[in-house]
Amino acid sequence: MGQPAQISARPSQLKPSSKKRTHLWLLLIPLLCFLSISTPRLGLVGLGEETQRSSPPSPEPAFPDLPRHCAAIPAISTSTFEARRNTLAKRLRQLGAAAYIAEPSSSAAYYFNVSDAHWRLSERPLLFVVTPSVSATADRDGDISANVSILTPKFEATRAKLLPLSPSAYIQWAEEQDPFAVLFDALRLPSNSTVFIDGSARLFVADGLQRALPHGQVQNAPPQVVEIRERKTVEEINILKCANEATLLAIRATHKRMRIGMHESDARELVAGALAAVGLEHAGCLTLFGENAALPHGSGTNRVLQKEDFALFDCTGQLHGYWSDVTRTVALPDSSIPEDHLAIWHHVHAAQSLARVATYPGALTNHPDIVARARLMLDGYAPYFTHRLGHGIGLDVHESPYLRGVPAAQATLIQTGHTFSDEPGVYIEGKVGVRLEDCMVVEEGAPYATFLTAGVGGAALSPWEP
Amino acid sequence: MGQPAQISARPSQLKPSSKKRTHLWLLLIPLLCFLSISTPRLGLVGLGEETQRSSPPSPEPAFPDLPRHCAAIPAISTSTFEARRNTLAKRLRQLGAAAYIAEPSSSAAYYFNVSDAHWRLSERPLLFVVTPSVSATADRDGDISANVSILTPKFEATRAKLLPLSPSAYIQWAEEQDPFAVLFDALRLPSNSTVFIDGSARLFVADGLQRALPHGQVQNAPPQVVEIRERKTVEEINILKCANEATLLAIRATHKRMRIGMHESDARELVAGALAAVGLEHAGCLTLFGENAALPHGSGTNRVLQKEDFALFDCTGQLHGYWSDVTRTVALPDSSIPEDHLAIWHHVHAAQSLARVATYPGALTNHPDIVARARLMLDGYAPYFTHRLGHGIGLDVHESPYLRGVPAAQATLIQTGHTFSDEPGVYIEGKVGVRLEDCMVVEEGAPYATFLTAGVGGAALSPWEP
Repeated sequence: MGQPAQISARPSQLKPSSKKRTHLWLLLIPLLCFLSISTPRLGLVGLGEETQRSSPPSPEPAFPDLPRHCAAIPAISTSTFEARRNTLAKRLRQLGAAAYIAEPSSSAAYYFNVSDAHWRLSERPLLFVVTPSVSATADRDGDISANVSILTPKFEATRAKLLPLSPSAYIQWAEEQDPFAVLFDALRLPSNSTVFIDGSARLFVADGLQRALPHGQVQNAPPQVVEIRERKTVEEINILKCANEATLLAIRATHKRMRIGMHESDARELVAGALAAVGLEHAGCLTLFGENAALPHGSGTNRVLQKEDFALFDCTGQLHGYWSDVTRTVALPDSSIPEDHLAIWHHVHAAQSLARVATYPGALTNHPDIVARARLMLDGYAPYFTHRLGHGIGLDVHESPYLRGVPAAQATLIQTGHTFSDEPGVYIEGKVGVRLEDCMVVEEGAPYATFLTAGVGGAALSPWEP
Repeated sequence: MGQPAQISARPSQLKPSSKKRTHLWLLLIPLLCFLSISTPRLGLVGLGEETQRSSPPSPEPAFPDLPRHCAAIPAISTSTFEARRNTLAKRLRQLGAAAYIAEPSSSAAYYFNVSDAHWRLSERPLLFVVTPSVSATADRDGDISANVSILTPKFEATRAKLLPLSPSAYIQWAEEQDPFAVLFDALRLPSNSTVFIDGSARLFVADGLQRALPHGQVQNAPPQVVEIRERKTVEEINILKCANEATLLAIRATHKRMRIGMHESDARELVAGALAAVGLEHAGCLTLFGENAALPHGSGTNRVLQKEDFALFDCTGQLHGYWSDVTRTVALPDSSIPEDHLAIWHHVHAAQSLARVATYPGALTNHPDIVARARLMLDGYAPYFTHRLGHGIGLDVHESPYLRGVPAAQATLIQTGHTFSDEPGVYIEGKVGVRLEDCMVVEEGAPYATFLTAGVGGAALSPWEP
């Protein structure tokens, strides 16, 4: 049969099992060593008891100075998920759509608390559906609420019922049936309905739905639906702040333990340990030394850190499903970074600061990108700033809206509740790469964006003070 | 920036790094123990040298009896990838389509040797395109060949050029551009072209392509294209055979080391070790004891094996990108399985055998399913056989065509080169679950399908002889 999909009741319970196993070994090693020393068959009976007990090195956590930074931050509450679905239902009604359909994905995580980590995508569709339910006296928005259905493979219905959600209906399709026809039969939508599909759904799903509703319109969910997820609430912002703070703390702790001569892979393992210690899930870091950092998404080598090298860490990790994204380009106490590389660091730093103050409610999303690029242009580095300034961040590391230098007609407005990365960079292939990244939030009452890392000091001060 | 995507030159170089790390610890433990014993500061200097050297248990591989079964099987050759693309180009020409477009996926792995393990999907499209290239004297199929283009984010062009492929063109889109408009500008297709998109592509990609080609047709690739991948060549069948043989060998080796009283998680770890020892990549096993096996894709508990329990292993693993899928439901020497559960095992076994001989060229794909179901109906177990008989297998664990009991009009023909799973099962919730699975191949000249595991004995003989 193959390809089992696992269910977990809550995202916070999801941990990569292989990671768990590694940690188990870390605990087991001292124990095994102790046993091998204290076991008579190894011929160690002559040793004094005192020696035996004190001999094994006491197990030392890799980062004892890193507490689980976000232990007090609550996950999204059940009532919030319900409120989100009701907002969606009202929006569907306004747009004249009969349903919204998502596969397990970040959008499904937003509305239904089920991501593709909870239910792995396969060729058998599992779909989440919201239809607006209108009360008999509906004349106001308040009378519209969300009706939830789950379309599930019949033989997996028991497993689907373990999902953390109580839908109005479980619609089951048997293996010999067309799942999409079964869905529309059960929903009893008018045959000329408009149905919105989450944009991350696979084409064959959208295609199958359209074939099962030949007189209706099955289409990619429009911006008016997508934007519901874009503006974050205080509950979400608190999670995002803590995740980003924790990530920065982990990078700083790693920085203190680095040394000239180590490999990229060593540093990568070190920072992974720090991110785990600080309590983030599914964490990972691009870790690139010297010229390797000139390829913004990585090279294939495992470079040894030279005195002349910057080290670049671009780290992400999850808290309650929400992502962090922080990049630091650092030097060590005994580094000797070339003057022109140091200059680039400071140009990028200035561009990052300027972009943040150019991010305010009512500005266009292309504005911070243009400002940062203009700053780098002054010194001739604009051609080496090869990617957009930033991306939205939330349940996806990269999500809309994006901070890109598109023409004004294609840009949208920056609004309160938006969260973006601010990550200018300069990449000169074969020489050097510098990127600095803190995510920011546009909050009510503030003149411009705040870094999500502000609680632990925010932006880097110098390559030696990340 | 976050979400780096890694490139590997060949699938065989891809290994989950966390797994690597676990294995590293397995090697390090004896070493650390040895060092702690032989180090003077631990006060062990008084021991005789002989004792010191012989004391630490010599490192024993977990499965010394399992050689890397498929070491001699070659990966798909460069010329095969080229031939596949030329076949696709001819098919496009026959169907009047101007292009075929895929995201990194199993289809891209088939034509371009790039899966989503090599280049992780993000919101920035990386697309592979085949357009038919017709020579000036084209009057025969042989004069049509494939033109390959890669659409890549501009700032990642250097990384894209590390992909194991030499396209005619790298088409680069800058961050402020519409990637789909850039693609069609570069391809210079007639504005009313028909373009096929691989069905696993995400809706927003298909949607963006359609918007960029408003007078053309952008559509899910039709069955005539999908079926190219369905019929396997000898080169592919050799890989599939060895992967499935190796998987069965790993299950058998695991079976020998099990004991009553162990947890599902222990058995899962054991079989994972066996699959790694035998040389498969990305391997994993559903491992379910007793009534837990009644949920075909798993339960949430970590059951202890009772004397009355069957243990079900449903294992997959990859060789050169191709998957195995083998299920065994086993008993231990000191198990005492209830009579009615044993009877179920033998009914399922009979259904599996019958389904295999019902799988031959020219039969409809619903035929083997109907035959297996009829066999189980004789004894009243058909209602508990809740899923289809089987699925195609290749670069996806589950791929078309499927062996399902659909009406004849919806079935397709079984042809030589088809590879399917044959996996009847009986699932009685709260009581018992039995599934037996061997994949099979429909080969030229054979009256009916052969099990891909035939080289190591094929189907199980009894619950004690898997």
